Order: sequence, then structure tokens, then C-alpha cells
Amino acid sequence: MRNISDAELKSASVPQLNHICEELRTEIFDTVSVCGGHLSSNLGTVELTVALHKVFDFPRDKIVFDVGHQCYTHKLLSGRADRFRTLRQEGGLSGFPKREESDYDCYDTGHAGTSVSAALGIAAARDLKGETFEVIALIGDGSFNNGLIFEALNSLHILNTRILIVVNDNGLSISPTVGGTHDVLSELKTGMRPENIALFEQYGLKYMGVYNGNDLSELLPALEEAKKALRDSCVLLHVVTKKGQGYPFCESEPEATHGVGPKSGEGEREYSAALGEELCALAERDPRIVAVTAAMTDSLGLREFFRRFPRRAFDVGICEEHASVLCAGMATQGMRPYYAIYSTFLQRAFDEIIHDVCAQNLPVTFCVDRAGIAGPDGQTHQGIFDLSYLSFIPNLTVAIPKNVGEFRAILRAGASFDGPLAIRYPRAGLDGPISPLEIGKMEILHSTTSDIMIIAAGERCICIAERVRTALRGSGKDVGIVNARFLKPLDEALLGGLPQKYVITVEDNALIGGLGDAVARFYRNSGKEVYSLGYRDEFIPHGQPKSLAKRFGVSEEALFALIGGLYARG
Amino acid sequence: MRNISDAELKSASVPQLNHICEELRTEIFDTVSVCGGHLSSNLGTVELTVALHKVFDFPRDKIVFDVGHQCYTHKLLSGRADRFRTLRQEGGLSGFPKREESDYDCYDTGHAGTSVSAALGIAAARDLKGETFEVIALIGDGSFNNGLIFEALNSLHILNTRILIVVNDNGLSISPTVGGTHDVLSELKTGMRPENIALFEQYGLKYMGVYNGNDLSELLPALEEAKKALRDSCVLLHVVTKKGQGYPFCESEPEATHGVGPKSGEGEREYSAALGEELCALAERDPRIVAVTAAMTDSLGLREFFRRFPRRAFDVGICEEHASVLCAGMATQGMRPYYAIYSTFLQRAFDEIIHDVCAQNLPVTFCVDRAGIAGPDGQTHQGIFDLSYLSFIPNLTVAIPKNVGEFRAILRAGASFDGPLAIRYPRAGLDGPISPLEIGKMEILHSTTSDIMIIAAGERCICIAERVRTALRGSGKDVGIVNARFLKPLDEALLGGLPQKYVITVEDNALIGGLGDAVARFYRNSGKEVYSLGYRDEFIPHGQPKSLAKRFGVSEEALFALIGGLYARG
Repeated sequence: MRNISDAELKSASVPQLNHICEELRTEIFDTVSVCGGHLSSNLGTVELTVALHKVFDFPRDKIVFDVGHQCYTHKLLSGRADRFRTLRQEGGLSGFPKREESDYDCYDTGHAGTSVSAALGIAAARDLKGETFEVIALIGDGSFNNGLIFEALNSLHILNTRILIVVNDNGLSISPTVGGTHDVLSELKTGMRPENIALFEQYGLKYMGVYNGNDLSELLPALEEAKKALRDSCVLLHVVTKKGQGYPFCESEPEATHGVGPKSGEGEREYSAALGEELCALAERDPRIVAVTAAMTDSLGLREFFRRFPRRAFDVGICEEHASVLCAGMATQGMRPYYAIYSTFLQRAFDEIIHDVCAQNLPVTFCVDRAGIAGPDGQTHQGIFDLSYLSFIPNLTVAIPKNVGEFRAILRAGASFDGPLAIRYPRAGLDGPISPLEIGKMEILHSTTSDIMIIAAGERCICIAERVRTALRGSGKDVGIVNARFLKPLDEALLGGLPQKYVITVEDNALIGGLGDAVARFYRNSGKEVYSLGYRDEFIPHGQPKSLAKRFGVSEEALFALIGGLYARG
Repeated sequence: MRNISDAELKSASVPQLNHICEELRTEIFDTVSVCGGHLSSNLGTVELTVALHKVFDFPRDKIVFDVGHQCYTHKLLSGRADRFRTLRQEGGLSGFPKREESDYDCYDTGHAGTSVSAALGIAAARDLKGETFEVIALIGDGSFNNGLIFEALNSLHILNTRILIVVNDNGLSISPTVGGTHDVLSELKTGMRPENIALFEQYGLKYMGVYNGNDLSELLPALEEAKKALRDSCVLLHVVTKKGQGYPFCESEPEATHGVGPKSGEGEREYSAALGEELCALAERDPRIVAVTAAMTDSLGLREFFRRFPRRAFDVGICEEHASVLCAGMATQGMRPYYAIYSTFLQRAFDEIIHDVCAQNLPVTFCVDRAGIAGPDGQTHQGIFDLSYLSFIPNLTVAIPKNVGEFRAILRAGASFDGPLAIRYPRAGLDGPISPLEIGKMEILHSTTSDIMIIAAGERCICIAERVRTALRGSGKDVGIVNARFLKPLDEALLGGLPQKYVITVEDNALIGGLGDAVARFYRNSGKEVYSLGYRDEFIPHGQPKSLAKRFGVSEEALFALIGGLYARG
């Protein structure tokens, strides 16, 4: 769509602004229909973002978007409308705020709960420098549960600065928002307990509410008033919006239309669906099985489990640390918690994985979804560090199934495994037979009499290895393939028995600290040569997974070239 | 001291219990005077712990100690009095709760804020199993600021179980407790704002207060009442105690007597003192310098900085994640934040290091204190993972100074370095000249014409290498030594120029993912042989640092043996 100038917006009447909102909403819907992305959350915040741009002066004033998935209207209003159809495409606009993309994006986000802390940091620096712009944190009610928010609120008195916190309350954090903090907000908007504002006042926030947050005639004066109130203190503006506003299907199915992604490929299975099926089957037989999620019941495949086993299913909101410790606590009492979470979000629970789960050697199973390059959501969502940050934690077993069938087998084996287990897997992939397996054992998929063995981890990399092997055999050459289905403990018996001089590791993870380093450590000073494909030491932006994997180091071409070089040496 | 039986305690009158409290207090003081440990926090909670043991039935009932440093009275009352003088000694009692040590310790802790989540997990499992014991989380007002607590409180309604949260409010979290949450508590105990109980009620907690928490005649009935109230809902019992109670010096100097540690050795310097001096000097010249801490101003050496630059000094309470994001926010506005924190506590901010600081490539300097084996505090405090969890983060520079002088030089260089920097260092060590250095460059300390080069990181390991080299030269052999003062970026120019066939790395870190792996990755398939000393894949318990380092893999003896083996091979 056309770029709308700040001057046009600032001078527009409410009816004109409403018209602009319709243009924006259409552009968002049409773009997401093609590019994928976050739909309902952006449809719900069109008026709020337009009002913020009308009342504040960006980029002089600064706005931090919590998580950042709801920034589309902001992008459209900050000179990026003409490029908006490149959204989430490689080389195009990011679906999240990016400082390198525009001066209007003052802080990059992607995970929940950072906005208030970041806004406070920006405001504290402003004060020290004697500057005077305004700083806004825009946060959804789901993120507002995250512990980081309370750490930030706790420090308002200490920091002695002024920011505006806008809580966009649509009642959802992908899954419906749960918990006491959200009850505080709900009781305020329904007028049930106006005294709840004490919670915010206690932390130094002046509370203001707009309960028809898709109505500009209410929003604009409220924002003007909030801006005035900012002269004296921090302000929390509670804005109630409707997720999916303007599109009836999105309004009625906000969880299903939160993120609109690529469809699974032909013959592909969702790993999450397999997780749900296996956990239900396990729970049927074993009363110790419980499932835990941090606000992503559906996308992790747990809807049916939650329906069938409500007492053994825990959605604790966007609280990844708490979920880990809760699992550890349950495990001390003999339960078998399965904690399903995306790879990058598990980074939030790093300390708790180490201390609460692994140091106590408790049987908690981490189901690490969206591992490897996840794609269009970009650098904050690429699951390329999990092998690196899990590989050095004592007591932890790390599994990397080669397909959905093997994933099922590992889940089943995990139920009777007496220690912490992490299983990392991508969104979707190939089905496969469920054959029994032994924890900690790799698998030789193809032996070879040649001097080259490929050790590949996970579906993307094993498929690359298979295709390269097939191509090589077409020209009379051969390589073997090992399925590295466990990174930890390392299968030293199998590795020690491989006769090949050349070992090539392939992994959908950063090169530093992953499978390649583990295999090379084992073979050090043995006379074997170890070569590794994995991601270089860089953050990986948004794009299509296959294209990004190739660009950052993992592809058939790279493997083919590497093997070609070895053959050329004889 | 003698073991006091549960029967004796249960049948004792208040005067008899007071007498027991005096015995306990004397034993704690005398033991800590010899063994080191947490003094004031334990002196303050003697009555509270005695009252809990009187009113509840441990180990049938379960108590989770937040952080766990205040568990001494509990250990003395649970059959471990006769071993108490082994506290924090290798093979002796841990200074923290340990499930493997006693059935009375139901959950291991060490870092802040996990107690409520763990207690909820234990209670949820109890309910699922149809059992009926009580679950208590005992938490200090300092830890109560941590975001994890609010994640746990947020889920009370969801989990629909019953626990007792005892908040031990002594106004201190090592440094004085700061922030809005503590203000809520303070205004309750002073009667200023009784309506503050709404904050807790909103989350589903019944609030009860005991404002003379060192007086058993108030404590005991309050605990009985809390136990009754637990039948209907979760209860928060706010107990005000005096840190250091009973010892006037401890009462008046609670921060200095929070932890009583070993004295620095002859000629040793505290790295933290150097940090404070350098930051003050830098801040004098450069208005962009700010210092951030999570409640440990004194032990990190920042007291003088806070006195001299109060507007540029931020203690945000035990909120490690928030502190990181706050730094990132300030850095986007051109400030130069130095965030000082212990190595293991930085694990809490892992996701924020990756996304907020490094993905945005912001000039935040992490001053990572107590790196390597820290000693008697045990496994939750050993800083042996930081090289592993920092080494794979893109954009991050990782420095490991060889002594206090080099630490100063890196701090100075950091002030004009345009990217994220982590400097890891132990508590105390040797002074040394402050010579200019280049970021990313290692240093050849001793070249050699022999075939063996040692690459050592950090003071402990360089000292080991130096002593081994001296000993070898005494018998006519020689080795070279490289000071690996930067792990990242790796100094490929220097490493590429080393002619030796054998390279030995020595590091005060886990072997997986540290210096050894980085050096071996560089030398892969080069014909060089790389051997590494570092810590095996295990958690390291409490004890004296030198003894533990030796036992877990890093010592002169191990290095000597390794080199001996190489010489034997010719």
C-alpha cells in the first residue's frame, strides 16, 4: 500500500483515521495471506498503533514492542508500506522490530517480557543525557505474566524515571491468558474490583483504562491524557482490544489465526501432532505422566491431552522458568513431567534446566520443538543453539530423532528413563516406522567400504546426507551414514568401531558446541579427520528454512563439495 | 552439638525452645567462624525454623528453602547436628539443602526465586497422588523480588493446590532489598497500608503477618493458625526477622556478615576491588559509563561507584534478567553499561545475553565474577559453565584475564569497544602490571623450541602451567605457554603460527564447549595433536577450590602426567 506520511496522520480527523485503519487492516490481511505471519494480533492493534502514531512523535519518541509480533501497523506507518509485501521473505521486512531496518524500531524483540525493562533502560539513558523524548512499552496481556515484567515493575521506584506502559489486553497469549495477573486486569475492565489499581499504584504506576480499544474516539483522548500524566510518573494504560478485529473468522478463532504459517509439505507430519498422540497414549497407561506448557497448548500439539487429562495438564502462561521448576518439583514426587516448548523459548529456562532438573537428576523430558532453522520468524526464533547449550549440562540426555516415527519411539522410551531428557525436533517432517531403540545409541543407516562416513543429526541433515549418498552412488562412489540420534551421552562404542578415515558431521545447529565438536572431541588425536557442516557463528535472519540453511552452511551442495574435495585427495 | 530429637522439640515449652535457640545460635556462630558460610541470615531465622519444626512434621511435610543458604537450623534439627562442623568442607555437609544428604531436604536450591514454583510442583504431585502432607516455601524478602516468584504466584489459581509461603522479611537481599514489592511488605509491617494485602489476595493467597519473628510466643500461634488456614487456600505468612539476631556486630553489619568466606591469600588481590577502582576511574572521564548489579553491590566491588556516581549506579534487586535488558536498553541510547554478576547467576540471563545484548550487538560489558571453581558454596555456585554457554553466542567477545592487572587493562579497553564483551574472573588472585592489550589477541608468555605448547586460560590455569614449566625446566625439559586471554574471537593468527606438534589446553571450566574445544576445532585435521585439561562432565560439589579442581581434572599433577606421556612417546 501507499506510505502514509506522519503529516497526513497528524492532521487526519477521526473518520479519516478510521478509513486509514481499514486500509491498514486490508493490507495486513492480504499480506499475511500470502507471506504468512501474525494475523489476529495485528488486526487487533491497528487502532491502538494509529492512535500512538497520532499522539506521539516517532522516531523521536521511542516505542518498544513486547515480543514484537504486533508491529505490522507500526511498520506500515513508518515509511515501510511500499515494502510490506516482502514481509518475512528473505531479504525483505522482518516480522519483528529491527533497529537495522528503520529508526522507528528502537529495540529488537522476539521473546516475551522484555519491553518494560528495555523501555526503562532507554528512559534512564535519556534522563542521564538530559533529553526529553517519551518512551513507551506496548505489551500484550499474555506477556504481562512473564516474570521479567515484575522484575521491571519492581524497579520503577529505584530507576526514578518515567515511561508509558500500554497493556494491550485481548485476553489471549496465543492460548487464552491465564493466571492471577490477568485476573487483576479482567476485574478492572469489568468494573468488578476497581481497587485492583492498588497493585499498579504500589509499584509507582498511575493506572488508566480504555475498555473499547478499537474505538479511536476513546483511544485518542486517553492517550493524550496518558501523555500528560507522564510528566509526573510512570503510567500504565490498560487498553482492551479484540484480537482479530474486523475479520469474523479471526475474531472467533484467535488462537488458530494468531500465527499463519506455511502449510506442511506433501506427506509431512507435524511432530507436535505425534507428541500429543504419544503423550495421551502414555498417560492412559501411566498415571505419573503430566504435560506442561508455557501458553502454547495448540501449537505444541497438546490440545487433546489437555482435554482428556485436565488435572495432569498445566498451562502456566508465558512463564518458561516457572514451568521448568514446576516440572522439577513434580518429578521429586515421582511424577514424569513432559515439558513442551520451542527451542529458543527454552533458552529462558537455561539456569533451571541446569540446577533444578539436571543437578537433581530428575526425570523431566523437555520436548524441544521448532529446533533448527525455523524460518520466517527470524533470528529470535531460529532454534540453532539448543545442542550447544544442552551439550555441556551433566546428567542430561539429548536426543535428535531422524523422523516422526523415531520421535515417537524416543518419547516412549523416555517414560521409563530415570533422568533428564531433551528431545529436539523440527516443526514438520517425515513419518517413519516406530522401532524400539536404546537410549544413548546411534544407528548405522548405511555402512560402507569407502573411507567416508557421514554422521548426521535430525531429519533435515539425514535427508541431505541420503540425497548426497544417492547422487554419489550414481557416479560409482559411496559413503556411509550414521544417524546421530543421541548427542549425549555420545555413543562411544559405535564411534570407536567406525573404520573410516574421514568423518563428516552434519547438524541443523550452530557449529560451535554442537555434534561436530562432540564427535571431533571423541576422535581427537586418533588419526581420523573430522569435518563438520553446521551454522557459522552468526545470527540467522528470516527467510525460508531450506534457503537459509544453505546460505548459512548446511546444504546438499556444501556436503557434496566437501566429499568431492576428499575424493580428489584420494 | 547434640542431635535434638523431634520428640524433644515437639514437647518443649517456649522457654525450653528459647534455650534450644540459643544452643543453635551458638553452634551456627562457632561453626561459621571456622568453616565460613552464611552467618547473619541463619542467625536471623533460628526461631522461625524451630517454630516450623515444632508445628509441622518433617520429613513428611516438605519445606523448600529459597536460595537455601538459610537452612542451617533445619540441618541442625534434622539429625545432622553431629556432623555440622563438617559444613562446606569437602565430603562434609553442604551449606545448601541437598536431597542426597537427608530426607528432610526435599528440594535442592542455590539460586533465588525457585521455592514457590518447586513447592507448587510438589503440592500438585501430592494432590494427583491423593496424599495429604503440607508443603512450605521459605523465602527471603530479597528473593521475593525475583521474577520467578511472580510467575509462580500468577499460576496459583491455575494449579488449584495449597501451599504455605513464608516470607522471611529482614529487609536485606545481601544488599538492602529494593523495589516496589518490598515496599508492599514494608507498608504492611508498619501498618501504613493494610490494604496492600489485596496484592496477595488477588493471586489467591491469604495474608497473615508476624512482625516480631524472632519471638516464639508470637511465631508459634501464627504458624498454627497458618496451618489451619491451609485447609482452605494458599497462605502467605509474612514474618519479620532481624538478620544477625543475637550477635550485635552481625545485626549492625548484616551485609558484611551475610557470607563469611575464606580470607584472601598472601599477596592476593580481590578482582572485585579492581573492578570498583577501574569503573570509578572510567566513569570519571566518560559520562556514558553506568554500573548495574542484581543485589550484590559490595561483593562485586561496587560500593564506591555507587557512592560516587549514584545516578549512574543501578541495583535492581535479585533480577538478573531485568538487569541485562536494562543494560541493553541503555546501550541503545549510547551508554556503556557494565553489568557485574557472578558466573552462575548470569545463567539466569542467558536468553537476554543472546537476544537483547548480542543479537543487537550492543556495547554491554558483563563482568563475570566468581568464574571457575568457586569452592565451598558447592555445585550451584561453581562458575564452570560460562565459557561453554558464552562461546557460541555470535557477536560476543569473551575475555579471560590472567591476573588482576590484565583484568584492569581489559576493563579499560572495553570502554571503547563497540560490541558485547564478557570478562570472566575468579574471586581473588595475583596483581600484575597493567599493560595495553588488543581485544581478541592471545599472548605468548613463553615461547619454546620444544614440541609442546600449553594454552592456558585464566589465573588458576596459567599458574599451573607456569609451575609445571618451571619443574620441567629443572629436569632439562621445556614447554611454551600461551595466555588465552580471549576465547572469542579466537586468535587464529597466533594459533596458526605456533609450530609445536602438541598443544595442551588448560581451563577452569567444563571440558565440553570451552577453550579446549575451540582450539581443537581450529587445529582439526592439521596434524597437530590437541589435549585438554578441564572439568569432566559432572556437577562439582562443595570443598576447597584447589582440591576440587584437582579432583575434577585440573591440576599440576594432571598436566605433568600429560606432558610426561608426550615426552615418553618421544
